[in-house]
Amino acid sequence: MKNTPTDPVPLLQDLIRCKSVTPAEGGALTYLENLLSTHGFVCQRLIFREAGTPDVENLFARIGSGSPHLCFAGHTDVVPEGIVESWTHQPFAAEIADGFVYGRGATDMKGSVAAFAGAAIDFVRNAGKFKGSISFLITGDEEGPAINGTVKVLQWMAENGHIPDHCIVGEPSCVETLGDTIKIGRRGSLSFTVTVEGKQGHAAYPHKADNPIPKLARFVDRIAHATLDEGNDHFDPSTLAVTTFDVGNPAGNVIPSRATVKFNIRFSPVHSFASLKTWVDEQIAVTRQEMGGTWTVSATEGADAFITEPGRFVGLVQDAVEHETGVLPKLSTSGGTSDARFVKDYCPVLEFGPTNATIHQTDERISIDELRATQAIYARIIADYFSAEL
Amino acid sequence: MKNTPTDPVPLLQDLIRCKSVTPAEGGALTYLENLLSTHGFVCQRLIFREAGTPDVENLFARIGSGSPHLCFAGHTDVVPEGIVESWTHQPFAAEIADGFVYGRGATDMKGSVAAFAGAAIDFVRNAGKFKGSISFLITGDEEGPAINGTVKVLQWMAENGHIPDHCIVGEPSCVETLGDTIKIGRRGSLSFTVTVEGKQGHAAYPHKADNPIPKLARFVDRIAHATLDEGNDHFDPSTLAVTTFDVGNPAGNVIPSRATVKFNIRFSPVHSFASLKTWVDEQIAVTRQEMGGTWTVSATEGADAFITEPGRFVGLVQDAVEHETGVLPKLSTSGGTSDARFVKDYCPVLEFGPTNATIHQTDERISIDELRATQAIYARIIADYFSAEL
Repeated sequence: MKNTPTDPVPLLQDLIRCKSVTPAEGGALTYLENLLSTHGFVCQRLIFREAGTPDVENLFARIGSGSPHLCFAGHTDVVPEGIVESWTHQPFAAEIADGFVYGRGATDMKGSVAAFAGAAIDFVRNAGKFKGSISFLITGDEEGPAINGTVKVLQWMAENGHIPDHCIVGEPSCVETLGDTIKIGRRGSLSFTVTVEGKQGHAAYPHKADNPIPKLARFVDRIAHATLDEGNDHFDPSTLAVTTFDVGNPAGNVIPSRATVKFNIRFSPVHSFASLKTWVDEQIAVTRQEMGGTWTVSATEGADAFITEPGRFVGLVQDAVEHETGVLPKLSTSGGTSDARFVKDYCPVLEFGPTNATIHQTDERISIDELRATQAIYARIIADYFSAEL
Repeated sequence: MKNTPTDPVPLLQDLIRCKSVTPAEGGALTYLENLLSTHGFVCQRLIFREAGTPDVENLFARIGSGSPHLCFAGHTDVVPEGIVESWTHQPFAAEIADGFVYGRGATDMKGSVAAFAGAAIDFVRNAGKFKGSISFLITGDEEGPAINGTVKVLQWMAENGHIPDHCIVGEPSCVETLGDTIKIGRRGSLSFTVTVEGKQGHAAYPHKADNPIPKLARFVDRIAHATLDEGNDHFDPSTLAVTTFDVGNPAGNVIPSRATVKFNIRFSPVHSFASLKTWVDEQIAVTRQEMGGTWTVSATEGADAFITEPGRFVGLVQDAVEHETGVLPKLSTSGGTSDARFVKDYCPVLEFGPTNATIHQTDERISIDELRATQAIYARIIADYFSAEL
């Protein structure tokens, strides 16, 4: 006979009450470590340091050994509460009202952490011994610079034989209703700064100067309307946005010597950092050929694009969500970055968690029904994962 | 028998010692008024005022009546001396060294004022009665905002029957050697500010925003390479210089809502303020048709273009210069603005004065030889003017 399922509500309330605004641990990891240890998980507290960034605490917890190894990746750090007076309920009080648990991190993402912890504890209690492993990769540096968090925990996991077979990131992936969206990849982001140097001169004698502005304008006109790709089944076409164009010349009778433009490309896995840098270099070369000038370009790599191709793992999660909610989740690659961008270098990864309507906002909250339903979905995923052959 | 010619050197020295940095009169106009009155000129001190600008003193002096009426237009105000310690000779001491008179205004343009005053006094003394008039339009607001100076003296002259038949502005027009250049016109200057408004948005979702930068880049690419005209005998083709392009968006993940460009057009009399505004409006209309956006444009009128077509007056001055210097002066329309832009609305005007190598600089100076030669040229112009039928 099964035990009564763990209720994620008090778990979530305890976590919200740990004031863990990045990079503060706030007691959240210690709470989780104690909870998981009690149920047989072997826990490692990992503190990473790097010059110029705050020290960050992280937690790796694992039960079982060998494959299949399912990892839940998440974070207990939260963004700042903002103006406390604007909250209807205190941001770290975890008050319950009208069927909701209120508080910073309720959906991003202490709710998922509580729900997966509850689901995993229940599975372990009911299953007794099982073939494989369940692990938690919990960082305190997801909302911050993300330097001393998931990326270094993964390196540590690789060095210590803890790389999982599959990973679920508990980011709030759903948009309208619980179950509507699983994220199976993300577009990449790459930013460029292009500067053109010409020769300063008097506006009355343009032939004695070499104006960089028209050169850069031609370049912008060229790149802003280019088709980078046509997209594919899982990705919209890659996009390019020019974000600024600056000269800053206050003198109306002077032709300036320098102009700078910045732009950002969001791209599908059809592209890579390297292919886009080559493309930009080509556009510069063509424009320089036409217009002259001294061009410099620098690129700032954001996240690389990735996709976890739909297959048995994605299908298992999709089926579990549909079974619990009655909704067939859309497989999406939209939105910004998450720590899944680091996990994808080690194993197939997807993101599934509650609706994200109130994340980073005043009165962040999750309904108790949604929290419990999320736990039920995670429980079904875990059960199916360890009964299936992936 | 002719009197000994007036020596312009002590005249110039006296004028330099009047510290008349705009808008200060510094005693310069009073000195000139006394000098010209002594020789029979009827003098009027004209003080003009306008809200937001300093009061400015001006001098109008005339001898004779009726036509032909030759006017010399100039200014006794000077630009500031800058860093006094950088001067080899004190800027208001009028020291003589190595054959030069040193001091602020030596060439721009107390030198011309002294030379024309000397020439006019000598002519009047030698001619006794002569048919026609010689006048001086001397302002104290040429180096300043030019609001309470020449433009208002001309209005006053028009109201009081003093409009001349021809005018020589004594600006230092020569470049390499005395006599090499007469200016018979100037290009016009018109500046534009064009702003495009779009819709702000996230760089990851350009289709939800409306980026003004590519619209303005297309516009710049269009106007920067346009041919405004082909020029003519006296003017190079009109030119357009884009002087700045600014967005000022520091956020690399945000598409901005606004972009602004400024440009300046230098134009020949083939164009006018009106024709250029129409042309810019057309370029905007075509670009807006292609690209959308909300466009606003504003124009700041600098000087209008003008030319005093070569004819008997210009030829007379050209011949006089060649006779005295052995150099046939070039008829030029290059360079920036001068008060000739106001005079041209009333009568034919040209600019002739000494070489301009040191104007506005530390150690501004004029060689005594050049000063005396300038006076000789002015003397020949006056003599020829009143013996010719123009």
